[in-house]
Amino acid sequence: MSIRIGILGYGNLGRGVECAIRQNPDMELAAVFTRRNPEDVTILTESAAVCNVADAPEWKDKIDVMILCGGSATDLPVQTPEYVSMFNVVDSFDTHAKIPEHFANVDAAAKQSGKVGIISVGWDPGMFSLNRMYANAILPEGKDYTFWGRGVSQGHSDAIRRIEGVKDGKQYTIPVESALEAVRSGEDPELSTREKHTRECFVVLEDGADTSKIEEEIKTMPNYFADYDTTVHFISEEELKRDHSNIPHGGFVLRSGKTGWDGENKHLIEYSLKLDSNPEFTSSVIVAYARAAYKLAEEGQTGCKTVFDIAPAYLSARTGAELRKDLL
Amino acid sequence: MSIRIGILGYGNLGRGVECAIRQNPDMELAAVFTRRNPEDVTILTESAAVCNVADAPEWKDKIDVMILCGGSATDLPVQTPEYVSMFNVVDSFDTHAKIPEHFANVDAAAKQSGKVGIISVGWDPGMFSLNRMYANAILPEGKDYTFWGRGVSQGHSDAIRRIEGVKDGKQYTIPVESALEAVRSGEDPELSTREKHTRECFVVLEDGADTSKIEEEIKTMPNYFADYDTTVHFISEEELKRDHSNIPHGGFVLRSGKTGWDGENKHLIEYSLKLDSNPEFTSSVIVAYARAAYKLAEEGQTGCKTVFDIAPAYLSARTGAELRKDLL
Repeated sequence: MSIRIGILGYGNLGRGVECAIRQNPDMELAAVFTRRNPEDVTILTESAAVCNVADAPEWKDKIDVMILCGGSATDLPVQTPEYVSMFNVVDSFDTHAKIPEHFANVDAAAKQSGKVGIISVGWDPGMFSLNRMYANAILPEGKDYTFWGRGVSQGHSDAIRRIEGVKDGKQYTIPVESALEAVRSGEDPELSTREKHTRECFVVLEDGADTSKIEEEIKTMPNYFADYDTTVHFISEEELKRDHSNIPHGGFVLRSGKTGWDGENKHLIEYSLKLDSNPEFTSSVIVAYARAAYKLAEEGQTGCKTVFDIAPAYLSARTGAELRKDLL
Repeated sequence: MSIRIGILGYGNLGRGVECAIRQNPDMELAAVFTRRNPEDVTILTESAAVCNVADAPEWKDKIDVMILCGGSATDLPVQTPEYVSMFNVVDSFDTHAKIPEHFANVDAAAKQSGKVGIISVGWDPGMFSLNRMYANAILPEGKDYTFWGRGVSQGHSDAIRRIEGVKDGKQYTIPVESALEAVRSGEDPELSTREKHTRECFVVLEDGADTSKIEEEIKTMPNYFADYDTTVHFISEEELKRDHSNIPHGGFVLRSGKTGWDGENKHLIEYSLKLDSNPEFTSSVIVAYARAAYKLAEEGQTGCKTVFDIAPAYLSARTGAELRKDLL
């Protein structure tokens, strides 16, 4: 029997989860839950239902794992504790500073309901976190570096679009190649914010807007752009649509460390991702962890888990013997 | 109280383990066990004992985890089942084809004794295996690539040294940069053995040996060199000692895969290592897994485990809350 998955929220991430389930023959999409009128939502999977979120409790015994595809700002802090009282859940909560609080809330609710809740799944937090953790455990004396990009930052694109006179815009975060090379060469550099990443903006203006004023406003925006070298390109709406409709991303996690009685030998561990679609890759990680949630629940485990707490084999559809034979 | 570690076998790996323990304040080296006369073995850790292997049973209650530093060909197939009947153990068994058999033997012995045995720990098998497994679980539709090097292959160096007229030699395995780039570019190339790696040999001759005959003998050696483009350099004993005394290694694990309803988006996951000292890095991985063996045994777990079976957090000296706050 397949693992029956529910999707709560049908945006980019929800659609990515739907596609990822199709690549995993041990899983099936049971239903998509939306805040919209279900009749207005068309999904790709013919065999799955589309329901209103209000109907979710009726699916308690028909869904093995509910994947929560809402946002971290307002949706997940409420939804994850709420839904883990009914379902095993996985979310992609990515507000790093609030993870301890979110963990505590989900853990309490999951222990009460006897369900499993896996939080902060994706690539950062997620696969990048795992690589930071493994590398730190292996090389206790060393230095960590994380670079993001080249990729679209949703938050920075939104910030541009809020400026008066801006019709639309996309922002790319770009790692500075020379900084990456300095880390790889074993120099253990101290890198400022400006030295690690640059920002490139593609902006469509409203008619009659003042380019130099808007460029200045972007480049000096505190928190978002002021601490970076930022390039601004003004382009047409057609160009934006043609050249910047995708949501690529990626990045690099590196740890350089020393071993030997006197630290005489250096080592570099590097993990990198180059992603055509940020939401689809995130979804693919989430679906692997949905399998883990199912297996953990089958074993009778309960409570909140993160990627640190889950043995890798739980993510795979293959047996332990197959994994040892084929991948070890 | 610290985790008390024993080291069985004091070669390059055993010395690496000794150095790694020093970097982990929650661990201490209790004793080194050797087949040699203990009085002839000098170790670096003043507080630790040096004993003959025959005395190991007396240390049953004074060592939490015994790290087995023997070779995979003849030592570990015997030692790991034998010692797991007395101790929690970690080994670096790396004969890929014989892992299922070794797992079964260690698992039976460990279940009988109530101990934990973690096998095949290091970087390949080990960290490379983990990355293959995670990447396969995340991107079920994709293609795997592993490249090794630039680094010294002990087996190939030994093969050179067995040739008549060769006094000493070192062999480097080198990944072909253009093949790596083809994988990174998303071409999903089919690569032959010759297209993936080249081999470079540094050879010291006995007096009067025939260079062209030996070069030919190396380049045509079946299994070791015949399927590769091989370069042979003849150098002096002084040069070999001066330039080729270290044991660097490393490599790359890549998986390229597709997502989307029709596989329309491509992704690349890459993990790489650049290691000044192969045995010291392997030792550092082993010591992190020794911590895991200790924690698993404390929980009452028994039997044989691999890197696939162990949740990442077990490797770390930090608490779950610290890991979530600092690294997630």
